[in-house]
Amino acid sequence: MTKKHNAIITIGRQFGSGGRHLGKALAEAFGFDFYDRRLLDEAASHAGICTHFFEKSDEQAPSFFSSLFSYNMDYAGYGVSNTTSRLSNEELYRAQADTIRAIADRGPAVIVGRCADYALRGRNDVVNLFLHAPIEKRIDRIVERLDATDREQARQLALKADKARASYYNFYTDKQWGQAQSYDLSLDSSLLTDGQIIDIVDNYLTSRKL
Amino acid sequence: MTKKHNAIITIGRQFGSGGRHLGKALAEAFGFDFYDRRLLDEAASHAGICTHFFEKSDEQAPSFFSSLFSYNMDYAGYGVSNTTSRLSNEELYRAQADTIRAIADRGPAVIVGRCADYALRGRNDVVNLFLHAPIEKRIDRIVERLDATDREQARQLALKADKARASYYNFYTDKQWGQAQSYDLSLDSSLLTDGQIIDIVDNYLTSRKL
Repeated sequence: MTKKHNAIITIGRQFGSGGRHLGKALAEAFGFDFYDRRLLDEAASHAGICTHFFEKSDEQAPSFFSSLFSYNMDYAGYGVSNTTSRLSNEELYRAQADTIRAIADRGPAVIVGRCADYALRGRNDVVNLFLHAPIEKRIDRIVERLDATDREQARQLALKADKARASYYNFYTDKQWGQAQSYDLSLDSSLLTDGQIIDIVDNYLTSRKL
Repeated sequence: MTKKHNAIITIGRQFGSGGRHLGKALAEAFGFDFYDRRLLDEAASHAGICTHFFEKSDEQAPSFFSSLFSYNMDYAGYGVSNTTSRLSNEELYRAQADTIRAIADRGPAVIVGRCADYALRGRNDVVNLFLHAPIEKRIDRIVERLDATDREQARQLALKADKARASYYNFYTDKQWGQAQSYDLSLDSSLLTDGQIIDIVDNYLTSRKL
């Protein structure tokens, strides 16, 4: 488990599949950096704009890029400060992608979401994971971590979040979110513990000589 | 590699991803039975009808189940013998599914294609794999194994075969062909050798205690 790996692991995931949790566990096991909301902070400071704006637009694809097709391409109109609201969605995406590439250049990392797989295409030290689980198992997890008070609310939350993730991914990449062929390795996380998945990824990285 | 496993491995695959070849290698490595065209033979003898009919209709979904919606449900009209042509597509599918379940009851096996994952749903000793590869890599393989004389022909062959597989799978199961969530484990086969994939699956089965 403490084998020396040298890779960038990107994680795509269905809402409630435990992808973020696993990403953190993977990073700890392999001694990699971990990025997720921190990535946004970094992107924000990189581009010199406030984090709040990133948080609002992050993977909120439908309303997010509907504005791309509106008459005024430069004005996203999120009702935030004048400085940040003038940044187009395209510029925002580019700032995030640039940051992801800078992070990857720095060394081994686990990056959750944000089309990191696409931003890092062409690099041969990148492993793209996708985690999924049957909807009832995801509802269990969502209710357990208190993101929803009842199962129906959890179900709606999961469906809505996945729809937003798919729209965002399908818009910004040339791949389809959730399609096996968009990733190197996809797993049903409900069949395994985090420890077992770490073991499988460990083995996978070794096979790829990473 | 010679660890003792007790599982049924089903393999879904993109055309040209080497899924059948890997399935055979997996079966050999684990000492499992291997089914693919043999499955059809067995289904045929089980149902007491000629193999030729099965071969014609196997995973030829579009023309295959278009007949389901035709006026005469019982007469598939494949131009084979009177006895076999009276078997409906639904009956044919059921005979195959019954055979797949009988095979699984007999012991460890690798079963390629034929919606085996769906026929065996509910069993907890089943591992559903999906193998894919970028289209250019699949074309390499298709040309190499002489299924096509040039790359354009290989491309068309792959696209057509995958379309037929997806239609067949999506019609007979409640899942979507090629979607990560339809399988337990999906892999890009072009990034690894068969030996490496066997190693990963070996590790995966051990984690699942199978």
